[in-house]
Amino acid sequence: MSLDSLPIRIVCVRPLFGGNMGSICRAMQNSGLSELVLVSPAENMDQVELRKMALKAYPIYEQSRRVDRLEEAVADCGLVAMTSGVDGFYKQHATSPRELAPELLDAAARAPAAIVFGPEDKGLGNDELKLATHLVRIPSHSAYSSLNLSQSVMLLAHELYVASGEFEGPKEATPPATFEAKERLFDAWDQCMQDVGFCPNDKRPHMMMGLRRIFSRGELSENDVKILLGLARQCSWAAGKGPEKRKIPGSS
Amino acid sequence: MSLDSLPIRIVCVRPLFGGNMGSICRAMQNSGLSELVLVSPAENMDQVELRKMALKAYPIYEQSRRVDRLEEAVADCGLVAMTSGVDGFYKQHATSPRELAPELLDAAARAPAAIVFGPEDKGLGNDELKLATHLVRIPSHSAYSSLNLSQSVMLLAHELYVASGEFEGPKEATPPATFEAKERLFDAWDQCMQDVGFCPNDKRPHMMMGLRRIFSRGELSENDVKILLGLARQCSWAAGKGPEKRKIPGSS
Repeated sequence: MSLDSLPIRIVCVRPLFGGNMGSICRAMQNSGLSELVLVSPAENMDQVELRKMALKAYPIYEQSRRVDRLEEAVADCGLVAMTSGVDGFYKQHATSPRELAPELLDAAARAPAAIVFGPEDKGLGNDELKLATHLVRIPSHSAYSSLNLSQSVMLLAHELYVASGEFEGPKEATPPATFEAKERLFDAWDQCMQDVGFCPNDKRPHMMMGLRRIFSRGELSENDVKILLGLARQCSWAAGKGPEKRKIPGSS
Repeated sequence: MSLDSLPIRIVCVRPLFGGNMGSICRAMQNSGLSELVLVSPAENMDQVELRKMALKAYPIYEQSRRVDRLEEAVADCGLVAMTSGVDGFYKQHATSPRELAPELLDAAARAPAAIVFGPEDKGLGNDELKLATHLVRIPSHSAYSSLNLSQSVMLLAHELYVASGEFEGPKEATPPATFEAKERLFDAWDQCMQDVGFCPNDKRPHMMMGLRRIFSRGELSENDVKILLGLARQCSWAAGKGPEKRKIPGSS
């Protein structure tokens, strides 16, 4: 599911600062959101800061819609989530961004959905919070539980983006090495230990157990095995006992 | 597990802007982190912006440690995670903040752990990335994949905070209503429909199915049932057919 094809709206009520507004635009674009509605924004927002923080995402601000009242911003919405602070109204009913995200995506497939954020200085009032279908509280530490406005938008937008499943995580370029390939690798290192005189022969099984454990701590890819196998053989060769002189057991 | 008892370090390499630095401090404190190390920070950082964005978290900046080289910042660390952009070195090996978080908490219980962030303008170089034990890439939309520095710190710090399990989510104050309590509720509304003359008697079972579905869409708490039960009874009463005159079936 692609976030940019869903009607998901970020609504900022009485925002004050241009820097935050710019950061909000960037956070939205970072997460594939683009619809911004401003309810009675401050008239003296610092436009230089706004552009500086929005950078490439400035068009989101230019294309934002302005309305006088929150009701207008969400009139056509189904799900309306509002962020509330620790001491907010009905806080015991609040959900977390991570819990909300899949439900919001689901709702946005049927009707426009909104996430509403209050002003920097005091958040949303109770007469605004009562209009919410869902209240959201962002988990935060008691040392300083109040988040910056644009940081709150980032966390919510990011949860939606992750929940949308749109992001393809990085993948290892080669598949994991097979058991057989790894055994060939261990044989080569066992031979290498012997060839370079790493330890007395009777200690080698013990050392090999250590090396097996080290090589097994993370998943080895086919490519990793190629590198490590080549290294063991080269060490044997440099010690004057390489493939030119004697075939290493298990090598092809 | 409490995050503030674990040796987790945020390392910023050659940070440029005071506003971002202040936001980083606030994001750290929002998530229960406090140890900040700056590697060759810009000397002309805007201190007014820094204080304005850090607010209560300014002491984190005051107590930060400065070093000249990245190696010094992480010398005593076990796990060293570094954030890399879309086109970063070895990007196919990168993990996401959500995957990293539990592993980092686990590692920090054994040795100090660091998360390293590059400068605003170009991120970490390959000669720095090679020092990482873990590379992290934050999922972001292709429309604008590069995040603001302080937003990146917020997302990583927040994942750690959530993974620490320290946050006690808001709980409903009363337990869910039992089946029996809900049946009492439905009986009261059935009676109410009859008492207020909502529909012909033969349509009532159909209407009650609708009402049952509506009341069952979300979980009802004991308290919710009290409110709805009281409302139904009051409606019956106001229609001149309340408990004073006739006992409602199922009421106690």
